[in-house]
Amino acid sequence: MAEPDTGRFLADLHDLRRIGAYRTGVHRPTYSADDMESRRWLMAHMRDLGLEPEMDGIGNVLGRHPGPAPRLLVGSHIETQNEAGWLDGALGVVAGLALARAGLAVDVAAFADEEGHYGSFLGSRSLIGEVTEEEIDAARHAQDGTPLRNALAAAGLAGLPRMRLDPSRYRGFLELHIEQGSKLEKAGLRSGVVSGVFGVRIFRVEIEGQQDHTGGTTMAERKDAVVAAMRVLSLVDERFPMAAGPDTVWTCGRVVVEPNAPHIIAGRAELVIQFRDLDEALLDGLSSLLARIVQEVDRRDRCTLRLHPVSRSGAALADPALHAALKAAAERHAPGAWQVMPSGAIHDAQHIAKVLPMAMLFTPSIGGVSHHWTEDTSEADLALAIRILADAAEAALAG
Amino acid sequence: MAEPDTGRFLADLHDLRRIGAYRTGVHRPTYSADDMESRRWLMAHMRDLGLEPEMDGIGNVLGRHPGPAPRLLVGSHIETQNEAGWLDGALGVVAGLALARAGLAVDVAAFADEEGHYGSFLGSRSLIGEVTEEEIDAARHAQDGTPLRNALAAAGLAGLPRMRLDPSRYRGFLELHIEQGSKLEKAGLRSGVVSGVFGVRIFRVEIEGQQDHTGGTTMAERKDAVVAAMRVLSLVDERFPMAAGPDTVWTCGRVVVEPNAPHIIAGRAELVIQFRDLDEALLDGLSSLLARIVQEVDRRDRCTLRLHPVSRSGAALADPALHAALKAAAERHAPGAWQVMPSGAIHDAQHIAKVLPMAMLFTPSIGGVSHHWTEDTSEADLALAIRILADAAEAALAG
Repeated sequence: MAEPDTGRFLADLHDLRRIGAYRTGVHRPTYSADDMESRRWLMAHMRDLGLEPEMDGIGNVLGRHPGPAPRLLVGSHIETQNEAGWLDGALGVVAGLALARAGLAVDVAAFADEEGHYGSFLGSRSLIGEVTEEEIDAARHAQDGTPLRNALAAAGLAGLPRMRLDPSRYRGFLELHIEQGSKLEKAGLRSGVVSGVFGVRIFRVEIEGQQDHTGGTTMAERKDAVVAAMRVLSLVDERFPMAAGPDTVWTCGRVVVEPNAPHIIAGRAELVIQFRDLDEALLDGLSSLLARIVQEVDRRDRCTLRLHPVSRSGAALADPALHAALKAAAERHAPGAWQVMPSGAIHDAQHIAKVLPMAMLFTPSIGGVSHHWTEDTSEADLALAIRILADAAEAALAG
Repeated sequence: MAEPDTGRFLADLHDLRRIGAYRTGVHRPTYSADDMESRRWLMAHMRDLGLEPEMDGIGNVLGRHPGPAPRLLVGSHIETQNEAGWLDGALGVVAGLALARAGLAVDVAAFADEEGHYGSFLGSRSLIGEVTEEEIDAARHAQDGTPLRNALAAAGLAGLPRMRLDPSRYRGFLELHIEQGSKLEKAGLRSGVVSGVFGVRIFRVEIEGQQDHTGGTTMAERKDAVVAAMRVLSLVDERFPMAAGPDTVWTCGRVVVEPNAPHIIAGRAELVIQFRDLDEALLDGLSSLLARIVQEVDRRDRCTLRLHPVSRSGAALADPALHAALKAAAERHAPGAWQVMPSGAIHDAQHIAKVLPMAMLFTPSIGGVSHHWTEDTSEADLALAIRILADAAEAALAG
């Protein structure tokens, strides 16, 4: 059985957290000086382990194992959200190093900009051929508007070719990540074997009412966009539970009201509604249900409502063999202390799954905290995770 | 019967609209150079008519009639909302001049800052002794934060004493104003005799949920502030119609969601809910109903809700004798083409009513437009209004 050096694994994680350290977390936004230093740190460690590292024109780092097939691809992302946690994606990248150190035939990858500072999964999507030069030309920093081209040039990446993943090199892809939720902690469990990554549908509901003075306009005359928005949310709250599966989640996280003044009846409102599940047919059913709800309020209410699709990302199921290997390894190393669970958050694995068999493993997030510098996982659970991952990888390579 | 010079009345209104002209409307925010020029314009016209004008330390202009009692007070406000209509308050001020010109014993008033650029009805409230020096010290411009003291100094008003209204001078107060709604136009009527000015209750509902990732948090775990906000609005929509009177209006015009991002369950939300009616007991009943609704959602939902009173302005009923005089005059000058109606918007009359018998008259607003440069009323309806007002004033002075 492959015996990963858990002490060295933890030491590498602590070493990496020094780069861009922010309080007990890290601040390494994509293409920042600290992010680029972390990529060079990674390439140096790859070289020490006998992997052949390469960084490409979008910032992806891939360390190729020199030995013959069969091989696995192992990795995640190394940049972070602003003032965020020390583990998150770094955990999955350093896990790849630990597996290579344990003598397993793995390529190690750090996919660029998983955190979406400039785009949507630019690194993993670029590796599978989904990112065009036009998309790169058009991409801007989400907050400050810096063109992606300028950021790539400043990071020394302009002109470098972009790698394409060669699926024939690998039996599959493994990603270790923190849970980013509190299901494991609440259940008193130490590890989560991911059944798949939720598909996500995002819609925007646009509501046109009529802006009027709150005092001079009778209730019967009003076209109040806030009232129509409330009716949509109320029907979603009433009807989604009947159409949803046990794991489905749905959310309206964004509400825009115009002019949003106490004495003015809102003339316009906007809701952003999303839902997530592993079951694509169920997600399509919920999309139809939302369309019927919006149509119903449009017909009954004096406001005009329109539904606009914003984005759609397909669910990705774990490969049965890799998933089974992770379950078997979890039960060996932590009998009764793990569970199968879906990933509600999207990961690079969702995109890599389009070209390779994929499986993911979760470590518990203390207090469910994610994307904040206080994010943490106990060292015992981190050590357990690398033992499970190495064991499963060995089984997959032997199978 | 008092015969106002309707031609001169309209000419004065058109002359005044040149000051701060903006497209077909005007832009005369409180204490701006144009606002101060309009006050000097008013004082010059008062002098021409034999009134004795005075401007006070908050910008109120009062033109006192030199003759003996009985007298009436007639007026409104002369500053405007930004890029707003040419009539609004100016109509009621210039109406005062027209009545004085027709030989009626009226004092004419322009109350400062009815439009609330710096405070809440600063001019009329100051005249009845409700504004302290501390309130003036603390007041800031609603948008740019300029201290009121600085604005008063820049307008040349610093150090001037503030007038106090002497109720013993007057039989009552008359205010002519545009409707700011479309009830008259929709009913095909030309004039509205105001039964009273709605009282207003404003409350803020504060909702504390828990900010979480939309993908990693199960529906059962969530404390979603948007869902709790929707439940409050839904119960208001369901229960207010049963407790409200035929004229009651209720509105949520302001919704704040934090952090208001598509992928984050809202950790905090805020609703500003207001309701208006002539019946104070009914308004108190609705306040209790809202408190029960917020309590119910607080108990049933996983979020924590708190209700905060924001402001309370009492309803002001028209004085029966002045109201009857306006009705009689309306029927004489426009038989069958007028109606009794409440004022949903607050006016200076609501504050002056605390110390004087009060009555108001409305002219139709074309298309219901108010607080916008396209606001307008037909000249025929303006001329009709000044004839009704003069007739009623003459009756009140004779009575």
